[in-house]
Amino acid sequence: MIRSERLAALIAPTKLALMSRQPPSQSIRRWKCVVAYDGTTFAGWQSQPGGNAIQDKIEKRLNEIFSADIRIYASGRTDAGVHAHGQIFHFDAAWSHGSEKLIAALRIGLPAEIQVKSARPVDADFHARFSAKGKIYQYHLCQGHADPFDVLYTWSLGHSVDVVAMQEAARELVGKHDFRAFTALNGPEKEDTVRTLRRLTVTQRGRRITIAAEADGFLYKMVRSLIGALVSVGRGKLKPSDVGDILRSQKRTSLVKTAPPQGLFLMKVFY
Amino acid sequence: MIRSERLAALIAPTKLALMSRQPPSQSIRRWKCVVAYDGTTFAGWQSQPGGNAIQDKIEKRLNEIFSADIRIYASGRTDAGVHAHGQIFHFDAAWSHGSEKLIAALRIGLPAEIQVKSARPVDADFHARFSAKGKIYQYHLCQGHADPFDVLYTWSLGHSVDVVAMQEAARELVGKHDFRAFTALNGPEKEDTVRTLRRLTVTQRGRRITIAAEADGFLYKMVRSLIGALVSVGRGKLKPSDVGDILRSQKRTSLVKTAPPQGLFLMKVFY
Repeated sequence: MIRSERLAALIAPTKLALMSRQPPSQSIRRWKCVVAYDGTTFAGWQSQPGGNAIQDKIEKRLNEIFSADIRIYASGRTDAGVHAHGQIFHFDAAWSHGSEKLIAALRIGLPAEIQVKSARPVDADFHARFSAKGKIYQYHLCQGHADPFDVLYTWSLGHSVDVVAMQEAARELVGKHDFRAFTALNGPEKEDTVRTLRRLTVTQRGRRITIAAEADGFLYKMVRSLIGALVSVGRGKLKPSDVGDILRSQKRTSLVKTAPPQGLFLMKVFY
Repeated sequence: MIRSERLAALIAPTKLALMSRQPPSQSIRRWKCVVAYDGTTFAGWQSQPGGNAIQDKIEKRLNEIFSADIRIYASGRTDAGVHAHGQIFHFDAAWSHGSEKLIAALRIGLPAEIQVKSARPVDADFHARFSAKGKIYQYHLCQGHADPFDVLYTWSLGHSVDVVAMQEAARELVGKHDFRAFTALNGPEKEDTVRTLRRLTVTQRGRRITIAAEADGFLYKMVRSLIGALVSVGRGKLKPSDVGDILRSQKRTSLVKTAPPQGLFLMKVFY
């Protein structure tokens, strides 16, 4: 049903072809876009050989719109199953029909699970990744079993957890630290793993727990590793002070599990 | 991840086998269950040859639990893609381990999209369908395009609609009427098509419109036909008074479209 409605709303392809027939050299601009997506059925953000990454879907649609090979650059990749309310990407192209029509053209050819919420021209030196000054993530937990409608967006813990202990552990982590113990890096040891975790809050509302994390940047799988450690504290498998010890050890340990992806949302990127 | 966690929580099969080894004749009781489900991936409620109906999934699990052929009876079927917060079904079986353990045993073997929320023994003359005194449905519309996370639970109308006209049309429909014009019956004309629509409200909150319908019972595809008519009014294709005329005609017309299933939720059944 949804698909047929979208098809019905299709802008005539000839019209789109006309739109892009202008000489591109005349007005190439950098466009900054905000995109929301439900990551459930995609292979994460980053382009994959199978073409099932979110980046692949958006680039394919832009290539159709502009009849050209358009590459997009995101604020960072998200893993398979991770969602976004406010991922940012940029690309360079000649488009003189305004934001509204660009958003509409993108909507038509994209799966309904990927929605470009805004698009605006920015300075040529803007870069979605390198200009980013910080990010906010949220993670949703359920003490017990999430409702059918929340299952794809929540980590169901099966039982209740000690939220106060989790809040105490979170305070051990806030600040400027080497977060090497909370990443799943396979790369060279030399990478700069110091980040400033500005905020890590654990909020309970009934059975639902929301963890918000804000930092100047996050290492690979850092948020999910932090969440994994906090949940181990909530379950009594780690003490709050253990989390501080692990942080200072600067070594990844099997005590730190990586939380499953479906509870994680990229909320906002700051520039 | 979700699946592996559920498997980890699996009650040992031997324990379940022991539970059901009691002579069934001793304590067969009727159980009334409340079930919530995300209908997206299922072939509706009613048992299907392929086994992908919600009824099939629940009966399969009950058959495993009781090592017996258990048949369940719902308050009514829901179509493919329709969701439920409070569908009711009953079945007869001997179970002496309490509600909590029955719910847990059902959870283990069911897809996460189907969740039995409560189970309690009732009188033997209770029947989920024939004892029902009324039902409440809700339907979600979006003026514009629903967010990625709402797409499977909303009818995205693409544009804004005239909510006041829809409210006026709704008032034409409330009351005791022959709703033959708002069903997709293929069966004999003799079926009793008189129902009392106690409430049909149209509530707007930003881009989101929620329609709530309460009646002593609903005909096949009646809710979605009512919603289809109200949306045609909202889009200016029908006048509010046209809806009253169609009702009184007692004839299905091509002016009444059936709304797509994914916006519809069975909320509550009254007994």
